[in-house]
Formats: sequence, structure tokens, C-alpha cells
Amino acid sequence: MARIVQKFGGTSVADIDRIKAAAQRVKRAVDAGDEVAVVVSAMSGTTNQLVEWTRAVSPMHDAREYDVVVSAGEQVTVGLMAMALQDIGVDARSWLGWQIPMETDDMHGRARILDVKADEIVRRFGLGQVAVMAGFQGIASDNRITTLGRGGSDTSAVALAAAINADRCDIYTDVDGIYTSDPRIVTRARKLDKITYEEMLEMASLGAKVLQTRSVELAMNHRVRLQVLSSFEDAPGTLVVDEEEIVEQEIVSGIAHSGNEAKITLVRVPDNPGIAAAIFGPLSEASIIVDMIVQNVSEDGNATDLTFTVPKDDLARTMEVLEAAQDRLGFERVVGDPDVVKISVVGVGMRSHAGVAMRMFQALADKGINIQVISTSEIKISVLVSDAYTELALRSLHTAYGLDAV
Amino acid sequence: MARIVQKFGGTSVADIDRIKAAAQRVKRAVDAGDEVAVVVSAMSGTTNQLVEWTRAVSPMHDAREYDVVVSAGEQVTVGLMAMALQDIGVDARSWLGWQIPMETDDMHGRARILDVKADEIVRRFGLGQVAVMAGFQGIASDNRITTLGRGGSDTSAVALAAAINADRCDIYTDVDGIYTSDPRIVTRARKLDKITYEEMLEMASLGAKVLQTRSVELAMNHRVRLQVLSSFEDAPGTLVVDEEEIVEQEIVSGIAHSGNEAKITLVRVPDNPGIAAAIFGPLSEASIIVDMIVQNVSEDGNATDLTFTVPKDDLARTMEVLEAAQDRLGFERVVGDPDVVKISVVGVGMRSHAGVAMRMFQALADKGINIQVISTSEIKISVLVSDAYTELALRSLHTAYGLDAV
Repeated sequence: MARIVQKFGGTSVADIDRIKAAAQRVKRAVDAGDEVAVVVSAMSGTTNQLVEWTRAVSPMHDAREYDVVVSAGEQVTVGLMAMALQDIGVDARSWLGWQIPMETDDMHGRARILDVKADEIVRRFGLGQVAVMAGFQGIASDNRITTLGRGGSDTSAVALAAAINADRCDIYTDVDGIYTSDPRIVTRARKLDKITYEEMLEMASLGAKVLQTRSVELAMNHRVRLQVLSSFEDAPGTLVVDEEEIVEQEIVSGIAHSGNEAKITLVRVPDNPGIAAAIFGPLSEASIIVDMIVQNVSEDGNATDLTFTVPKDDLARTMEVLEAAQDRLGFERVVGDPDVVKISVVGVGMRSHAGVAMRMFQALADKGINIQVISTSEIKISVLVSDAYTELALRSLHTAYGLDAV
Repeated sequence: MARIVQKFGGTSVADIDRIKAAAQRVKRAVDAGDEVAVVVSAMSGTTNQLVEWTRAVSPMHDAREYDVVVSAGEQVTVGLMAMALQDIGVDARSWLGWQIPMETDDMHGRARILDVKADEIVRRFGLGQVAVMAGFQGIASDNRITTLGRGGSDTSAVALAAAINADRCDIYTDVDGIYTSDPRIVTRARKLDKITYEEMLEMASLGAKVLQTRSVELAMNHRVRLQVLSSFEDAPGTLVVDEEEIVEQEIVSGIAHSGNEAKITLVRVPDNPGIAAAIFGPLSEASIIVDMIVQNVSEDGNATDLTFTVPKDDLARTMEVLEAAQDRLGFERVVGDPDVVKISVVGVGMRSHAGVAMRMFQALADKGINIQVISTSEIKISVLVSDAYTELALRSLHTAYGLDAV
């Protein structure tokens, strides 16, 4: 017997047949003696429709009213799922965010969870009842509905799992796990049985869209064992767990890539103290998120080139902001390049192994791929290369680190 | 300055443009200095879709979960309406049933309102804020969402109007008022400026679909002045008010008709005590609602003919139930006739005027229309005639009672 949270994403509850199929999955766990709490997203497409309506009514709308509108999607699914369970003989009831309550701060539209009062849910486990909780929504101290931001249902599921001290939180989605690399590009990519929280965090923030970054952080902080698996198959997925649970740790667990980057180079920036702050201040004010930043020491001590990346959609706006500040900043010119890709090698094993970065640089060099920017963290090495090399770079690195499926 | 409730039905908030148009209507009242509470239905079509989903999941579903699902429709509209008001500079906030709270009993799917705690809404009137309340929904003592049954938003609006002691409750819909008869049939039908609660109740239960019967009852009990008017025009509608408010009361206010009736005649029923109970008991058990009942004294003291009406959809089932009980009940045969129409003359004035019924019978006789069944109440006379005469009967009576537009 285990206590588990099963979270079903939008594609897993997209229509009545899929809701019924998900209910059968819950029933199998209940029949096996597990205590089950279910967390559901809105039926796929619903949230987009609701968001579109809020924009059509008013582009600058009140976030509190936005939350009232968009939280309706999960409200529909939670009722339908409870009915579907009852229909196949499983005792179940729905819980809306305000009923639990799932307490959040008052940052409407992107609220953070403060506390989950799950005592009643646990009491009802003792009576054999399944709890079906609406994901994505909570309640603020002013008694108004909040939502957690896109993908927030994963975070809801993890927060509930932590509150009820669940043995596992299963995230059912339309992929069957976490792969060593994007299987659409790297045909030899393998599904990972396990991955550490830290690696999953890097993968999520590097563009792997399977789990919301915040949900992984929350799982890591509360040591909630996460499993990512397919709602359309009957096979184990990938477990996201503590490093200690992984006996034989690979040096590198995966190769991620993100095409959503654009490169900006400021040519001959005056090499003065405070120049970086002077450059990135205006970008921050414009809500442009800067990722990789590289600054070389200047050769002549007077001027240097500064390179960084921004989201591709923000390239034009970034150029405008910088050009408007050119006189004040004193650089010679600014060059933007959208045709780049960020390739990242991720693995907690690299902490204790030398030569991991060297192997990356050598593998790329062997294929004649020029590295434009390098950025590293404790468990990750990212490089920026021309996006024409995306597939070649991914496959070469996948082979170089011994990740290829046999 | 007045305090008013404005209720917008499904067709009046069917899309974003209509929601914006309704918001403009609210703004005009606010600009005129009125304190306004808005009550909205779900966007038209939404509730049907949600109900269909609940049936597809499980035909015998939990009414508590049904309420969770279908109440989501009004939740969407209430948020969008609050946004639309804010967008044109009107301070507004949405209120869900559980936030007010709109307290109901626990008869999920068809709950009755127990109390409306509207103090906070009234307090915010003082700050210039418009309250936008979700119709159709409330909260039961177990902290779960209830709904009031189809058309319940009218009842929500009247209950709120009573709670805040509103000067008027305006029901915006797709017709522009209450007519002396169906204007699609009687081209000379006139829109009534005023009608009494009692007459409106009879009209509603006789097939006029403009207002839900319960909402009229509630308005009558709390003396809430109701106005039915079009959301697509700028013209006064029909006021539903206390009899005393109507200075010059017509003898007859309207001619209603309902084609949703079928006639059943039991031929040669034994004239024993208790026979009526023996006949209608099985129909009641089968949830068949019997309307007009006529039984003549028997000529020979042994057997009589008994005639009554049931909803047309229930005719076949009624025949089955009666035929199955023929031996026990001892009637000779049963005859069903779906080709009938109920024509009703309604008016509080007939209480104090003799000859009202006579004028009806004479007018029908003049046109050679045979009356099959007669049934009367204090302010209504209904007759059953062959439905081939529907138009002729309505127009003749409309003229006979002097209702024709000049």
C-alpha cells in the first residue's frame, strides 16, 4: 500500500473518453490498495480559449478577474473526473482550491503556494475516498481565487503530495518519460529510468517542456519522488529523485537544446567599472530576460566585446533599447543574431569527473562546429552554436558521452 | 438615484461583443448615479455543453459534482463582465455564490435559496463599486457549490434584489417585454407596460418562457419590482408589480396558449368512491404531471367519463400505465389525443367582473370552435380546443377582450 498523487495534464483529460480512461487508471491504483489523490488540469484547449476571451474583453485586465475566468477550466474537469470515478465504483469527491484550502499569496495570475490544509483529504483516505483536486488554482487571504501561472497544475500536484506526505507523485502526460535527448532529433535517445532533481531542473529550464520548473524546485525542497509517465501507455516512466537514490550515476544524463535564443554582441564597449550594470539595467526595466553573458578581458585595456543571449521574441526590442542608449553606453555598434541554438550537457556526475567539458569541445570540434559562447554551472555546460548544426551537434554529443541506445 | 439589479441572460452575454454592450448599459446606470448590482448567466450554449458532458461521463451522476461542473459557466461570465466594466472605467468586482455567500439548502441541482449575505456588496456601493454576481449558483452548509435549476439566474437576481432592498430588478433578455398574447401569432398583440405578479405567475406557468416561475414567486413574496426588457434595444419593458401599483386594471391582461398538452379520456369509468385516487396514483408514481382534470356526474349512476391532460411527451407512457391497470380500474377504454391546445385568459380584474368566462365561451362559439375541457382559477380561465384552431382562437379572444392594438 502506498499513498500517491496522480496528476493528469490537459491532453490526458482532453475529452470524455480520456477522462474515463484516466479514471480507470486511478481505479487500478485504488484496487491495489493505494490511497490516491488525483490532480487535474483543464481539458486541453480550454485554458487558451478562456485566456483569449480575457484578452478580447480588455488587454489590461484585472488579474483577480482573470483568475476567476481561467480557473473555471479545472473546475469543469474536477467535477467530471469525480463523476467518472463514481461511475466505476470508486468513492471520490472533487476539491476546488478554495475548498481545501490551497492557500497562496495574492500575486494573482502567478501566485505562490503558502500552505495546503489537507487534513480532511487524509481523513477521507481512511474512509476509502479518492480526493480529486483542481490543479492550477488556490485562494488568497482576501477570499478570492488565485492561479499559479501556466503549467501550475504540476506545482499543485507536488504541493499536495508534500502536504499529505505521499510516497510518489505521478505526472501523467503525453510523453512517456525524460529522455537523454530530444528523440525527434536524436533517434538513439534513451528514456531515463531515473534523473536527479538538479538535473531535471536544468533540463526544464533548458527547454525540456515536460515539467514546470517550479514544480521540480518544490519537489526537490520537499523531497517528493516525482514520476513522469504517459497516460496512453502502461509502462513505468522516469523517476525524478534524490541523487542518493541513483546508485550508478552516469557522468552525463542528457543533452538538451533550446532554439529560443538570440545572440547580441556589443562591439567595443568601454571597459569601465559599472558598465555591465549600465547595459543590463535598461533591459531589466524592459522585462527582457538575459541568459548567457560573456565578457572577455579587453586586449588594449580600453574596450571589450560583450555577448549575451535573450529570448528570440525579444531580439527586436532588445536592439531598440540598446540603440536608444548607445550614446550613453559608448559602444561602437550592436549586432543581433537569431540563428543560434543553445546546446547543454547536463549531469550531476560531472561534479566529480574531470574532462567532461573537454569532451564536449572536442566532439564539436571534430565535426567542425564553431563554439560562439560558453557558459557553465556546477552540473551543466552550455554552448551557443549556429543553429544549422543543431541536429549534428546533438547526435555527436549523444554518442560522445556514451548515451546512445544499444 | 436608485438601487437596481440588472440581470443579463445567456443571449445577452453570448459573446465578447455582447458582454461589452451589456457593460455599457451598466455604465449608463452608474453614470446616472444609480447603485448597481449585475447578475449574469452563462454565455448561451455553455450550460448545455457542460450538462451534456456530465451525461456523457455518467447518466446517474452525483448532483454535487454536477453542480461543480455546470456552475463553471457563470464563473467565466462574471469575471469577463467585471473586466469589461473596469475597461470602460467602472469600478467593479465579481462575486461567486460561495463568496457572497448565497446560502442555499443542500438539494444539489435544484437548490433553494435560504439567505443572501449582501452586507459587503452594500458597503461597496458606498465606495462606488458595482457588484457582478454569478447567477444560478449558491453554497450549501457543507461548503459545496449548489445550483438552482434551469433558469435559476432570474431567481438569483430577485433574491439579491430583495437582500439589498433594491428599487428595481431589471431582467434583460431577448424579448422586449410581456405581451397581451404571442406576437408571432397575434399581430395585434400589445406590449404591457405593467402586469401583476399573480398574472405573471399564471402566464409563466402557462407557457410564457420569459421568466422562471420561482423568480416571480420570490419577487411577489418580497415585493421586488421586476422589469422584463430587451438587451438589444433602448426602450422600457414590462414592469411586474403589485396589484395596487396598477391604477387602471384591465379585466383581462393576456391570452396565453400552450401546445404542450395531450388529452386523455377514460371512457365509462366505474363511479365508485376512491376511483380518482386509484387512477392518478400510478401516474404520480411514474412522475407524470397531470394538469386539467374534468369529471362529469354519471348519467346512470354507474359509470362516467374522465378527461385530463398530460405533457405531450408523456402521452405514450401515460397510455401504457393506464392500459396496464385497465383490469383493476375497470374502465371500458382509454383514448389519447395529442392534437389539442390550451388557451387561457388571464387577469386579476376578472375577480370583480361578472361575465368574463361567458365572453370567452361566446367568442369561441361564434367561430364554431368546440370547447373540450374547461378549467378555472381565481384569475384565469383555461379551455382545451383542437389545435387546428390555435391561431383563430387566440386572435378572436384577443379582439373579444378589447386587447388589440389600435
